[in-house]
Amino acid sequence: GRMREHLYDVNRTLDSYPTRLGDDPDEGLLRETLNKTVSAIVDQQKLLYADRSQAVLFLFQGMDCSGKDSTIKHVLSGVNPQGVHVANFREPTHNETAHSYLWRYWREMPRRGQIGVFNRSFYEEVIIMRVHPELFDTRHMPHPALDEAFWQSRFGDISALEEHLTRNGIHIVKFFLNLSREEQKERLLARINRPRKHWKFDPQDVVERDFWDDYRHVYQEAISATHSDLCPWYIIPADHKPTMRCLVARIMAETLMALGLEYPRSDPERLAELEAAKQKLLNEDNL
Amino acid sequence: GRMREHLYDVNRTLDSYPTRLGDDPDEGLLRETLNKTVSAIVDQQKLLYADRSQAVLFLFQGMDCSGKDSTIKHVLSGVNPQGVHVANFREPTHNETAHSYLWRYWREMPRRGQIGVFNRSFYEEVIIMRVHPELFDTRHMPHPALDEAFWQSRFGDISALEEHLTRNGIHIVKFFLNLSREEQKERLLARINRPRKHWKFDPQDVVERDFWDDYRHVYQEAISATHSDLCPWYIIPADHKPTMRCLVARIMAETLMALGLEYPRSDPERLAELEAAKQKLLNEDNL
Repeated sequence: GRMREHLYDVNRTLDSYPTRLGDDPDEGLLRETLNKTVSAIVDQQKLLYADRSQAVLFLFQGMDCSGKDSTIKHVLSGVNPQGVHVANFREPTHNETAHSYLWRYWREMPRRGQIGVFNRSFYEEVIIMRVHPELFDTRHMPHPALDEAFWQSRFGDISALEEHLTRNGIHIVKFFLNLSREEQKERLLARINRPRKHWKFDPQDVVERDFWDDYRHVYQEAISATHSDLCPWYIIPADHKPTMRCLVARIMAETLMALGLEYPRSDPERLAELEAAKQKLLNEDNL
Repeated sequence: GRMREHLYDVNRTLDSYPTRLGDDPDEGLLRETLNKTVSAIVDQQKLLYADRSQAVLFLFQGMDCSGKDSTIKHVLSGVNPQGVHVANFREPTHNETAHSYLWRYWREMPRRGQIGVFNRSFYEEVIIMRVHPELFDTRHMPHPALDEAFWQSRFGDISALEEHLTRNGIHIVKFFLNLSREEQKERLLARINRPRKHWKFDPQDVVERDFWDDYRHVYQEAISATHSDLCPWYIIPADHKPTMRCLVARIMAETLMALGLEYPRSDPERLAELEAAKQKLLNEDNL
């Protein structure tokens, strides 16, 4: 579908992907499109839950202010929370850093029948850890040689994990919310200027902004090393939030529809079981 | 050391390994050796706990009655339980089968600073699942084609997991308790004949005995596919329990000693911190 233009292509650089799609379209139209797409996701989630043999895990990565939280809120708010599992990965706890680095992500894996959402993910282990290697001092492990081979081994860990999940019915789709440096500045200023947004402002975000190019570089490497047909990355223009939400919702809906889910069919044995139960219930009145 | 003769060698078949070592040695001597070796493990565990940058995971696999439970009891009973994490994997729960098959093993991974023990392990996923493929009907996933490629992909999952753990300071040693079919029969009869052992008898064990050759075959494949210098298998003669316990304890002690652990040394900054704390404590008396 139209969404293929946002699928990552290993022959392209991350910087060649737009952060905004031409003129911003009509907001009313976008809202209408989003509502229709969310309805499709709601229907697909019911099927996923009834079928129970597969799951989908949607990962969100992106710079600070790229809209991860608000996209998750807008796209998944109408879905039955019993069928959705959202995990938000921030600073690890002491218990988490005492385990190998994949452990805390494993704990939050969706069950089959669920839509899983990771707000940040194990990709932080090859993103922030690479931009700020001093964080290894807090990781309670022998300090590794942070050479090319080390990062390749982490990409290998991640690919092995994703392939394992896919082979076991848990499908993975990864979103990089592609924000421009200029738009990040606007959003940070908005958080500072509007009292009701003060709680969202973290002074560290302004510090991290100085590492913009480093982040882009390590994202480029991580995305190109871990993109595959089965576990794809989508590069979503993130400067215009209503457009971004529509794109993310469309890709989610298409991913779910591609599973070809159906309500479990009743075989003759099951039909006989249902008929017997029906007779038993109806006979209660005759006692 | 002497233990190398029990290390798996990919050029040998599992059947070429003995289930018993010549004449049974003096039991008093074995008990004494075991006590000394357990003391060495206790000392090493204290170092592991103080250092906190590494862990060791000991896996036990073997036929029914091969002595997994009693070996763990005898070898680890003297060790501080705060530094040991034992997980016993039986029939999975509904929640566990709703996740991909590695999930329930990840939940029980030791932290750095701990000795982890798996009584059965993720190897069951390429052992019992291969001997009894009908179990896939209970696994809530699309039924896979159980061909060579499928089992190779599971060996790949396991090797990727073990390599990840090793690279992150969690070292893995795998024990196959090598029991003879004749000795299994004796032990099952003992459970039936002695009232105090009745609780240990599971009629299913007698059924599984009919699949002996199938189990040996899939163990051979799994062990040769996943043995490596860094994540080795040891094939332990299991027909004589006191000998087996000594061998397992020796390999555990040698594995821990090979880590070269030392109590963390205090650098000048730390020494200054300790001295300041000492002065503060001593000055309390002068208030």
